[in-house]
Amino acid sequence: MQRITALKEIAFQRHSFDGFAVFNWANLLYFSGFPGASALLVPRDGECTIYVYGVNYEQAKTEGKSFSVELVRRDENFMAKIAEKAVDCGVKRLAVDALGVESRRSLARATRGRVKLTFKGGLVAELRKIKDPAEIELMKKAAELTNLGMKTAYEVLSPGMREFEVAAEIEYAMRKRGSGGTAFDTAVSSGSRSAFPHGGCTDREIREGDLVVVDFGAVYKDYRCDMTRTLVAGKPMEKQKRIYGVVKRAQEAAFDAAKAGVKARDVDGTARRIIEDAGFGEFFVHGLGHGVGLEVHEPPVLNAVSKDTLAVGNVVTVEPGVYLPGFGGVRIEDTVLVGKDGAEKLTKAPYSLALNDV
Amino acid sequence: MQRITALKEIAFQRHSFDGFAVFNWANLLYFSGFPGASALLVPRDGECTIYVYGVNYEQAKTEGKSFSVELVRRDENFMAKIAEKAVDCGVKRLAVDALGVESRRSLARATRGRVKLTFKGGLVAELRKIKDPAEIELMKKAAELTNLGMKTAYEVLSPGMREFEVAAEIEYAMRKRGSGGTAFDTAVSSGSRSAFPHGGCTDREIREGDLVVVDFGAVYKDYRCDMTRTLVAGKPMEKQKRIYGVVKRAQEAAFDAAKAGVKARDVDGTARRIIEDAGFGEFFVHGLGHGVGLEVHEPPVLNAVSKDTLAVGNVVTVEPGVYLPGFGGVRIEDTVLVGKDGAEKLTKAPYSLALNDV
Repeated sequence: MQRITALKEIAFQRHSFDGFAVFNWANLLYFSGFPGASALLVPRDGECTIYVYGVNYEQAKTEGKSFSVELVRRDENFMAKIAEKAVDCGVKRLAVDALGVESRRSLARATRGRVKLTFKGGLVAELRKIKDPAEIELMKKAAELTNLGMKTAYEVLSPGMREFEVAAEIEYAMRKRGSGGTAFDTAVSSGSRSAFPHGGCTDREIREGDLVVVDFGAVYKDYRCDMTRTLVAGKPMEKQKRIYGVVKRAQEAAFDAAKAGVKARDVDGTARRIIEDAGFGEFFVHGLGHGVGLEVHEPPVLNAVSKDTLAVGNVVTVEPGVYLPGFGGVRIEDTVLVGKDGAEKLTKAPYSLALNDV
Repeated sequence: MQRITALKEIAFQRHSFDGFAVFNWANLLYFSGFPGASALLVPRDGECTIYVYGVNYEQAKTEGKSFSVELVRRDENFMAKIAEKAVDCGVKRLAVDALGVESRRSLARATRGRVKLTFKGGLVAELRKIKDPAEIELMKKAAELTNLGMKTAYEVLSPGMREFEVAAEIEYAMRKRGSGGTAFDTAVSSGSRSAFPHGGCTDREIREGDLVVVDFGAVYKDYRCDMTRTLVAGKPMEKQKRIYGVVKRAQEAAFDAAKAGVKARDVDGTARRIIEDAGFGEFFVHGLGHGVGLEVHEPPVLNAVSKDTLAVGNVVTVEPGVYLPGFGGVRIEDTVLVGKDGAEKLTKAPYSLALNDV
């Protein structure tokens, strides 16, 4: 309910709306704590209502906290129901977080001019960027499970295994300790495929000397984590070591630069400069990082064009990488909690290119 | 490319568009075979172009088949790029599959009145409803992996285990044989939680005599599967057996009714009538089923208000359920391939409420 209070303050006081309708699944989860809501209406005056279809109705009544729960029947006009309730509550200026073109049209039609709709996707994002203590606790737990997964990766990875077999062991290690699935599709990208930042995993057999980018995260009570390490199955070559060294220095420097009050694009710049100075600038083909929480990619964003300034309570990734087409790639990533004087690493695993150095 | 040809026929011949822009991730995957595209422009005259950000550029060039690949830089106006290309190709009536309100506005602005935009989410859905032989092969493979997962569920489930521990074993069994993750969040919902159709899994300890709804699916090369069985950890009670018997009869009858040319709502009705006649109508709180493919829920839909008619090549679930609040629920689900004279079950596992009957 604290989150609803914060939404009301930002939407009804800082902005002059008198109602807010939430449709985005992660925003719904953020406010309701319950995964099956289809919408949430927050009027300035009157009670908050969660809208659910019959399939989720009993669960909403049990787990939906202290909201009023409204059943939507399949043959009902869902948007009309929300519009009517908004009108009943005296809402005249309704902010909406996200809707597809067709649903937007249907909601607009249902208001019959009585409510002015404005899309304000960013408002809830502003709230969700700053993790509260309860969220930080869950994210630490997700990070612990992720650490276990990476420990498993270092233990099992060996030439001859297929990429998906390594993923199976990592995921199993996290899942049987309580991870709620995976934060995103686990990547175990080996050989020349390690040069694809989103290479995922295939049935490719890992060979001696391959670079292997291992990128995954656990989930704990809907909160996600994200970590990458790059390993070599066997003895690293000089060129692999050189790239690894550059990425490692960039990651350390960016981590050291990340604290409240610093512009996100400057943290990106810190890493980027090191990689550019080493001559690999054109091969760092993505931003430095992104916020993590209920979604694996959420605000703030850390890249060269970001308008975000880091703040206490942001949880973000720091993940520079260098990808040489045809040769392979190196990425090193931690999920970190931003504080006043610096950041704290939530993910913890050795930084070691060679398996047997661990 | 056959899929592009089919899209052109439906969009440019049956409808009178002269360009189609694809933004939905599953539609992009369907046409490109590659997971990192941000957009695909299909003009009536001129070559098809995939738009990708730098992070996916090398992978797109390697895996993006025979499309022209256009790099989008972070500081570029993505929608303007697409709009310019559409104008260059002489597109005047552009159909778009899906866009959020803000992106739509940005695309509309970038066309500066030179292109008329129309949202036609359903066109690609029409194509994707009918699986081609290559897709059916992948879905059969996903089903085989799912069958393995269910075999594991029957083998490991026992009182004293936590719900997520059962999920861990199921997922591991599928993953190490090549499943690309899970088709959706695995559900192992036990005791009174089995009455929540979307109960997922928690750390609840499964107790002797609990109903346990086990619902999950494997993924094979991006194609998903979906299967549910309901088990009792221990000796089933009379009431559990009675509900199970009703749901089983409903599932069998609906499966028998599913064939090309039959209205989806009539197949739903077949199952619903059996459950209603047994006095449990109000507790069958969802539709009978849904299409499965690249997405776990996609057209056609099988429920009481569906406008779909089944056709050869549809792959759909048949999954009636009865959920008694506070007591527990029973759902039985198979993924089936619709044929001319009947359907074929892709998922295969015993229908047995008691573990030791298997």
